[in-house]
Amino acid sequence: MTVQKRIREYGVEIGKLKTGPLNKITDVDGVTVGHVTLNDGSTQTGVTAIVPHQGNVFKEKFIAANHVINGFGKTMGTIQMTELGTLETPIVLTNTLNVGTAADALIEYTLERNPEIGRTTGTVNPVVGECNDMLLNDVRAKFVQPEHVRQALRNASADFEEGSIGAGRGMLCYSLKGGIGSASRLMEMDHGNYMMGVLVLSNFGILSDLRIDGRAVGQELKEALRQSYKEEDKGSIMIIVATDLPVSERQLNRIIKRSITGLSRTGSIITNGSGEVVIGFSTTNKIPHDKSANLLKLSQIHEEDIDMAFRAIGEATEEAVLNSLVTAEKVVGRDGNERPAFKDLIQKFNISLTRNT
Amino acid sequence: MTVQKRIREYGVEIGKLKTGPLNKITDVDGVTVGHVTLNDGSTQTGVTAIVPHQGNVFKEKFIAANHVINGFGKTMGTIQMTELGTLETPIVLTNTLNVGTAADALIEYTLERNPEIGRTTGTVNPVVGECNDMLLNDVRAKFVQPEHVRQALRNASADFEEGSIGAGRGMLCYSLKGGIGSASRLMEMDHGNYMMGVLVLSNFGILSDLRIDGRAVGQELKEALRQSYKEEDKGSIMIIVATDLPVSERQLNRIIKRSITGLSRTGSIITNGSGEVVIGFSTTNKIPHDKSANLLKLSQIHEEDIDMAFRAIGEATEEAVLNSLVTAEKVVGRDGNERPAFKDLIQKFNISLTRNT
Amino acid sequence: MTVQKRIREYGVEIGKLKTGPLNKITDVDGVTVGHVTLNDGSTQTGVTAIVPHQGNVFKEKFIAANHVINGFGKTMGTIQMTELGTLETPIVLTNTLNVGTAADALIEYTLERNPEIGRTTGTVNPVVGECNDMLLNDVRAKFVQPEHVRQALRNASADFEEGSIGAGRGMLCYSLKGGIGSASRLMEMDHGNYMMGVLVLSNFGILSDLRIDGRAVGQELKEALRQSYKEEDKGSIMIIVATDLPVSERQLNRIIKRSITGLSRTGSIITNGSGEVVIGFSTTNKIPHDKSANLLKLSQIHEEDIDMAFRAIGEATEEAVLNSLVTAEKVVGRDGNERPAFKDLIQKFNISLTRNT
Amino acid sequence: MTVQKRIREYGVEIGKLKTGPLNKITDVDGVTVGHVTLNDGSTQTGVTAIVPHQGNVFKEKFIAANHVINGFGKTMGTIQMTELGTLETPIVLTNTLNVGTAADALIEYTLERNPEIGRTTGTVNPVVGECNDMLLNDVRAKFVQPEHVRQALRNASADFEEGSIGAGRGMLCYSLKGGIGSASRLMEMDHGNYMMGVLVLSNFGILSDLRIDGRAVGQELKEALRQSYKEEDKGSIMIIVATDLPVSERQLNRIIKRSITGLSRTGSIITNGSGEVVIGFSTTNKIPHDKSANLLKLSQIHEEDIDMAFRAIGEATEEAVLNSLVTAEKVVGRDGNERPAFKDLIQKFNISLTRNT
Repeated sequence: MTVQKRIREYGVEIGKLKTGPLNKITDVDGVTVGHVTLNDGSTQTGVTAIVPHQGNVFKEKFIAANHVINGFGKTMGTIQMTELGTLETPIVLTNTLNVGTAADALIEYTLERNPEIGRTTGTVNPVVGECNDMLLNDVRAKFVQPEHVRQALRNASADFEEGSIGAGRGMLCYSLKGGIGSASRLMEMDHGNYMMGVLVLSNFGILSDLRIDGRAVGQELKEALRQSYKEEDKGSIMIIVATDLPVSERQLNRIIKRSITGLSRTGSIITNGSGEVVIGFSTTNKIPHDKSANLLKLSQIHEEDIDMAFRAIGEATEEAVLNSLVTAEKVVGRDGNERPAFKDLIQKFNISLTRNT
Repeated sequence: MTVQKRIREYGVEIGKLKTGPLNKITDVDGVTVGHVTLNDGSTQTGVTAIVPHQGNVFKEKFIAANHVINGFGKTMGTIQMTELGTLETPIVLTNTLNVGTAADALIEYTLERNPEIGRTTGTVNPVVGECNDMLLNDVRAKFVQPEHVRQALRNASADFEEGSIGAGRGMLCYSLKGGIGSASRLMEMDHGNYMMGVLVLSNFGILSDLRIDGRAVGQELKEALRQSYKEEDKGSIMIIVATDLPVSERQLNRIIKRSITGLSRTGSIITNGSGEVVIGFSTTNKIPHDKSANLLKLSQIHEEDIDMAFRAIGEATEEAVLNSLVTAEKVVGRDGNERPAFKDLIQKFNISLTRNT
Repeated sequence: MTVQKRIREYGVEIGKLKTGPLNKITDVDGVTVGHVTLNDGSTQTGVTAIVPHQGNVFKEKFIAANHVINGFGKTMGTIQMTELGTLETPIVLTNTLNVGTAADALIEYTLERNPEIGRTTGTVNPVVGECNDMLLNDVRAKFVQPEHVRQALRNASADFEEGSIGAGRGMLCYSLKGGIGSASRLMEMDHGNYMMGVLVLSNFGILSDLRIDGRAVGQELKEALRQSYKEEDKGSIMIIVATDLPVSERQLNRIIKRSITGLSRTGSIITNGSGEVVIGFSTTNKIPHDKSANLLKLSQIHEEDIDMAFRAIGEATEEAVLNSLVTAEKVVGRDGNERPAFKDLIQKFNISLTRNT
Repeated sequence: MTVQKRIREYGVEIGKLKTGPLNKITDVDGVTVGHVTLNDGSTQTGVTAIVPHQGNVFKEKFIAANHVINGFGKTMGTIQMTELGTLETPIVLTNTLNVGTAADALIEYTLERNPEIGRTTGTVNPVVGECNDMLLNDVRAKFVQPEHVRQALRNASADFEEGSIGAGRGMLCYSLKGGIGSASRLMEMDHGNYMMGVLVLSNFGILSDLRIDGRAVGQELKEALRQSYKEEDKGSIMIIVATDLPVSERQLNRIIKRSITGLSRTGSIITNGSGEVVIGFSTTNKIPHDKSANLLKLSQIHEEDIDMAFRAIGEATEEAVLNSLVTAEKVVGRDGNERPAFKDLIQKFNISLTRNT
């Protein structure tokens, strides 16, 4: 695992709450993340898998919710998640034109682990998210194969890299290189301590809009560059949220909707093109696939407890986006298209992220 | 209490499930219903109140859900109910142009019982539903006064009349007199027996569309009448659902959505005008207004148990609509406008509801 | 093309409106439908493609809407359709576990016709619907290949078969064989005549619930059979709606929601399992993919015109479901599982669909 | 009209787009705003009315949309607006417990202007928004009377005051005094120039979260005050959006949803309590109440034009919130509760809004 310099190491602390030990989504107990990265000339893409727990996710489902910030996207699996309030597969992220392949691989993965599907029980609802990496990757070639999805699932572990890796390989953030970023927040409540974890696949934003903890770093950088990236944006981001806070699907939906507060504070105007979708799950209450003779007993917070989760999701999302930006490496891809790394530019132009601007 | 002849006494049995003892929404333990009827010339309107439990509804809330079948209506209180998943006042039904008055009276009613509102706690979300009784009632005169709302709340009891009464006084059903109707169904499950209760305020439908247990009674009646009511419809119905089945707000929403199956089987095409709104609550889990130091513990059914509730809601809604139709009395109102009673017409024309057609 | 006996030829006329010339979805000008059927032992599945117009659907989009009746399903493409209000690919129907494959094939199909995708313009949103044919088909084997999707698209024509064909090959309807059914209605308005077309992939229902034009034919048949099918249902149906009525996406959504009235009248209680999703498009206003310098000018009906469309959709959906039932052939499939044809049973037991019951 | 010092006069310029001439919602042609302020001891409340055009709003409706950011609120009229996509009354803002009164007054106002309501045409859908001013106002007393609503409507004009006025009289913003604020943005497109106008009723936020153009002014102020306001928030804001951009209700909904980007940049975490609701209308296409024999012809932008509107709404919302904060006067109200004016505090503590922090 490469040690990567993250936004806090630039002196920027987002928000008021403490982070978890890793400051990643995997601070939520049981959650793991795996990448497969395809990096070869015009092939600049990949897969990132988020595994919600280490048992049989189909047999023991988690309460889940989703929220569409901007629906110009092809995320799969949200209809059933909304209806039933549960997640029953890992979540796979990849490029837009490979969602069919990824869904098929996730179906296959689940069939292997559950021989009763299609025999004595029904079917499975694969959850796949995407962003469009067409600038750096030859997206028309649909490079991602089923085996890549399986491998990303196999690679899943508690620690993982950020930046130009996995599904983030070809993605952009504020006109520079973006990709995978993550962060977490500790929520201390009367009845216990809980964790909020966020992982983003960033692929949105216009350089001059970029704000870092409020500072107009994007405008500064644009002026330093003296070279303008086209001031347009296709506006895509996938936001995956994990928490061990005991919440209902309605409460979880309220929480994950607030991810947009963090996103907005980095400068996004949520442009028209491509999709911005949030998917969240809570690891506390497991919903069994098979019915027993008894009622389910679930625990959940009182609504008055929820503000801390609202704060946590905003902070973690803001920081996860910034981590995706500051950890990303420069990538040269399709037709020689390239996007520089933020970290290289601020070094080159001697831009501080904390000095008074 | 007048003894009224209901649809079962005409030999019509809707569906497969057993009814509750009263075959009304008040078969759900703790639920009461009260009417105030205004009947004087052009004043043909009223109020019907559904009280979800006999304690302090604001302090002990019920899990609740709502569903808009057709939104050409002015129902109040659904935004907060959707966000928080709870009901914190009785539900008041009245005519469309009196919703403001009814909301204000319901606010007043709740303020009296809860001196901490507006001082140490926030505000209250009044829930008011409506249909438009303008044909028989001078709706522009807004006859309903705050005192009528209070009186309807005071009148609430376990048994109640149906038909041209309360908020149903001026309402129509399939071009004839309609109004208040109710029914209930018993749900026998592994873990216990539960009740599904429905109350409707019917104000929709075109005579020739009317079906009674599948029979085209409306067409038969239209031909017998040799006089056509205008074949148009403003399509309004309020459907109130109570159950003691332990369900989450998401599950309850799924259940109450299925009320449309029963509605459709009576012949409705869900026309454009006026509103069709369903509001439901579950009496099993009480959500305290005030936060304690602990998590809430809630019971709910497994999703695989829900089909019986889907069947129950459809049957009870179909039967409640028919009860509103067959119990209604003829009313002469504004400008001498009148609508006959279904029960008078089938007697006059010797129409059987059970013979082969 | 086999000549198939449809519900009207049994003497059953659903509703009040006239049908189109074919009484199929293809009565809407420009719409075509194609099937590929896989029928070999445990392979009882297929693909049905609905092509909205004969030009480049990606470059000239149709206004579209979708409505989830029950979200226990895996339909793809609804997020973007809801956000942007348009349809930009044909609609492909197949079995549940082949949605990934179908999506991928539809992406490929669109890439071939639009070389600018992934280069100078963004990506494409494939629309795929599904039902679960696991009783008769070995759904785990995922028999559908990309070439089948292409072939179904190539096969599309103005006339097409119904019943146990295409995606309908392995589907059930009211515990008997179901599959593809279609119907249409003429809407005569002041400003012109318009067509409403519906195609269903039926895979839902419990025999004893079946109603044909109100008659309890299912109960009669159940008693005649003296053999009970398990009284459970996984409740799935895809409903595709085409119309040349000029409507906005909001109006279209209102219209397609009313398909449930027809569905309910055939007896459905909309059970928990599997998905019930409606997708509709209007062929009047084409939305260009590429922006010009001018505003779009769109025509749409006044809301007061919409009731006829509400009636049309209910009637056409009810008749399409019945057509899927009465045209289906008996199928023997996986592990010798079989489901009889409705048409064989009513002949065997001498059941009339029109006699007084 | 008092001349008020607005945020730009403190040297703060939000965003990249030009403002309209007044930099208020009334820059949208035809829109007017009127206040009534009740200011006497424990009576610190009022009414603000937004009149969408100067003709008969019921007879000539505007395309409208709404979006619930947080539904802990009692806004009325959104169900019908969502179903029909139109606004048919002025929008009235007041305190939470007076929504019934305000709705009733708005009904009365519309009945007077439209004698056919309740006779030859149906009913009217009053639109009322609210925030809870219980700290400074004795909200339980429900001071607002119908006559205040009428007067606010009569007072409506193209210019209007901001701050502690009208419905904003008793409201808070970031723990200090808030209330009414407004801003506008010019959108220059190929096919013409358009205006985006926003008016907010602010009543949310925690002082230490406040950001002004990214600067952590709230934290600075909190430290200067050495006195802490309770760090909790009931999170309420009403956001009213007017534009002459020709958009469908779907497009308008997409636009007004982006108001949250501006809101977030002022520091809000969108807390649990009270409601955050956005209501928008477009003045270009008038939808006649009465049906003619012809189709409607509507103009709308191509989706690719919409990003400028997304930028405009975010900027205008951010600036409107800041204007509500910097224009507000100190208010002492119920039980001597008081909240200081931001403008007094920054003067007292010599805090610059533009210096490097």
